[in-house]
Amino acid sequence: MPLDELAAQLPAGALVTDPDILAGYRHDRAQDPDAAVPAALVRATCTADVQATLRWANTHRVPVVPRGAGTSLSGGSGGLAHGIVLSTEKMRAITVDTATRTAVAQPGLLNIEVKQAAAEHGLWYPPDPSSFEICTIGGNAATNAGGLCCVKYGVTTDYVLGLEVVLADGTAVRLGGPRVKDVAGLSLTKLFVGSEGTLGVITEVTLRLVPPPPPASTMVATFATVQAAADAVVAITGVLRPAMLEFMDRASIGAVEDMLRMGLDRSTEAMLIARSDAPGSAAAEEIDIMVRACREAGADDVFATDDAEEGEAFTAARRMAIPAVERTGNLLLEDVGVPIPALPALVGGIAELATEHDVTVAVIAHAGDGNTHPLIVFDPADEDMTARAHLVFGKIMDLAIELGGTITGEHGVGRLKKPWLPAQVGPDVMALTQRIKDALDPNAILNPGVVV
Amino acid sequence: MPLDELAAQLPAGALVTDPDILAGYRHDRAQDPDAAVPAALVRATCTADVQATLRWANTHRVPVVPRGAGTSLSGGSGGLAHGIVLSTEKMRAITVDTATRTAVAQPGLLNIEVKQAAAEHGLWYPPDPSSFEICTIGGNAATNAGGLCCVKYGVTTDYVLGLEVVLADGTAVRLGGPRVKDVAGLSLTKLFVGSEGTLGVITEVTLRLVPPPPPASTMVATFATVQAAADAVVAITGVLRPAMLEFMDRASIGAVEDMLRMGLDRSTEAMLIARSDAPGSAAAEEIDIMVRACREAGADDVFATDDAEEGEAFTAARRMAIPAVERTGNLLLEDVGVPIPALPALVGGIAELATEHDVTVAVIAHAGDGNTHPLIVFDPADEDMTARAHLVFGKIMDLAIELGGTITGEHGVGRLKKPWLPAQVGPDVMALTQRIKDALDPNAILNPGVVV
Repeated sequence: MPLDELAAQLPAGALVTDPDILAGYRHDRAQDPDAAVPAALVRATCTADVQATLRWANTHRVPVVPRGAGTSLSGGSGGLAHGIVLSTEKMRAITVDTATRTAVAQPGLLNIEVKQAAAEHGLWYPPDPSSFEICTIGGNAATNAGGLCCVKYGVTTDYVLGLEVVLADGTAVRLGGPRVKDVAGLSLTKLFVGSEGTLGVITEVTLRLVPPPPPASTMVATFATVQAAADAVVAITGVLRPAMLEFMDRASIGAVEDMLRMGLDRSTEAMLIARSDAPGSAAAEEIDIMVRACREAGADDVFATDDAEEGEAFTAARRMAIPAVERTGNLLLEDVGVPIPALPALVGGIAELATEHDVTVAVIAHAGDGNTHPLIVFDPADEDMTARAHLVFGKIMDLAIELGGTITGEHGVGRLKKPWLPAQVGPDVMALTQRIKDALDPNAILNPGVVV
Repeated sequence: MPLDELAAQLPAGALVTDPDILAGYRHDRAQDPDAAVPAALVRATCTADVQATLRWANTHRVPVVPRGAGTSLSGGSGGLAHGIVLSTEKMRAITVDTATRTAVAQPGLLNIEVKQAAAEHGLWYPPDPSSFEICTIGGNAATNAGGLCCVKYGVTTDYVLGLEVVLADGTAVRLGGPRVKDVAGLSLTKLFVGSEGTLGVITEVTLRLVPPPPPASTMVATFATVQAAADAVVAITGVLRPAMLEFMDRASIGAVEDMLRMGLDRSTEAMLIARSDAPGSAAAEEIDIMVRACREAGADDVFATDDAEEGEAFTAARRMAIPAVERTGNLLLEDVGVPIPALPALVGGIAELATEHDVTVAVIAHAGDGNTHPLIVFDPADEDMTARAHLVFGKIMDLAIELGGTITGEHGVGRLKKPWLPAQVGPDVMALTQRIKDALDPNAILNPGVVV
């Protein structure tokens, strides 16, 4: 590929071919063994750099992997040997407008930095993927990222009012804008959100901000069966919208207790951690309702607190689940979702798969929206175990599809889950997807191997 | 067109050619004079009927206008002389699942019937276009309809989890499903929501339902200037999310008072009607905050009540604005949106246009999301006035675009607003839209003349 030609159109230093640096752009957090060191890296400094790069790539048919912070858990930003990585990490400007309650951010800003910029103006950007301290807002938009507060406050797409996107041929288009309601033309903003870099490269995001929520109260309940916990989740979500409703199974509770020694009950089969941030005295009322729902579902132990620090300790325990389980081995991190009533069948089925294939699988879940993260533990030095872990990874997706669920609730399809997508959506939806892909990226240069 | 061939594939009575019946499918609520009596009407009874109709139409290149209840205010469902109307009015089934808090509805069901079906199971479907008693859920999804409670609860797309859509070639695809979080593949569900029948025909909608809100308290404030009212809106929406935040100008207040005689102050320039449905004592706190914000912005008169009936009277007054203004003449109903701080410039500019072109324009607005409905009054028997009204209709859109706004916040582009769409979104977005249209409807049979 004629890299000199590309370099001539970019600012000094934007095109990187140093092998030591390129090596750092091979993998994303999914650690896909098939990811390769890319042929080159472009660190775009502005929209024009992205345009120049895509024009060049489109002309020369060079695959382009768009990349934010590389925190993809489904291998959406891993390198390709014959392609380049187009990183937006240097594009980090943000402006906040309090009158329209919007922020205009460049894609390389971290989620936490967006939250901080909003907070400086007394506003709040809700979506909170667990990786919020290390993932970019551009990546969040490209994958329609979720998080813990989404059960009440919605996912990334609910906060994206507008985008600037560079198309495969280098054209930059502006979609939507700082308007809560806008139905002028097709919902193109929504189409690009969650398109995982396959239709265009996001170079600017206009975000809706909201007033900050009141302080949250917290409830923790333990159950002797997953079924009882799921019953409580159905009962709770039928009458109110909790600000958080998280689930941990026995294996994840044990791993967290090993790490934090905070006195969690290792013998319990399921734990729910719920929050209410309803204003004024309503939080206490909502917590009461949740406590009663857990008791009626047969909870062993229920604990409630309006002390922020105490409540935060349990949320931190839930957030620690992934690193805690990771201490016991490498992880294949699943992201399957099912309708809430199917939660016991999913968790039960996963336990059976774990036993059958002799691997450890710990399950945590954003229970309030049926989105689970089975954590499959394996030792990469043990080839047989690694193979069994990958087998179980696929079988969990098969199970989710069987239960009317999805192979990915919030992480994206990437390269790792692509083989299972047709089984979920069917050949007609795959054909429809391909028609849109072909219309927007006829030379298939944008993140090839992802989704389609 | 070979109607016999189509009739043979449909149940008896589904294909209608009776001119008296067809005449009723010429216009929608926009009363577009260019709408024509269609050549035929299909009243589909099921998805298979829609498939048969589109397969036939695609083969014979017959334009198809999909139609729900025909309540489009932008001429999105008016008849075409050389086309057929495909009505979903007979497809009216609904099932509600309390465990997943979802409803699966056929498109011909009215919005109010969806709300009622949800309420029978103790659940709530929030989106509430003012026409909710007469518009269909299929039309709501096709136009991404808004309403009064959207300022807090979001618009139709926020509640559509899944769709069954019949594509131009008759293929039926299922998109999404009863899952709050699902990022498997492109956001196709979101692309079809708001596509105004140009990409496919919606034959089933899976809707997210939520717990019903607590009873609402209401606040009403009057202002000597639109600027003061807009200042109050910015102040309020910066600190809380009201359940409703509506605006009426002097002309619409006068028209409503003429009709209802409820004691509204005709001399006031602007009135805000706001609601809080925060739980427990929080509603009173939110109302207090809104009252203070209005006083600080210079309100003349502020009134608050937690009496449901009293509050409902003011909401009813706001809902009556359109019929009240309609008593004074025919209406061209605008739907422009601007960022909230531009509200005074928009309302002021509209007043100038009204004076300059000697037409009456009353303005009501979903102020909390910057979405306004200027009501242009004209006498259709007066040709010159009719022409002036249409001129002002266009100039209001020009003004909204100038102010960084949108030509349509919630009604859709339809045929009436199509000429202004390129000025808002620009040639590159129009080209992108056309590429998607061509990919999905290569023979351009689906609602031609709308959007693209």
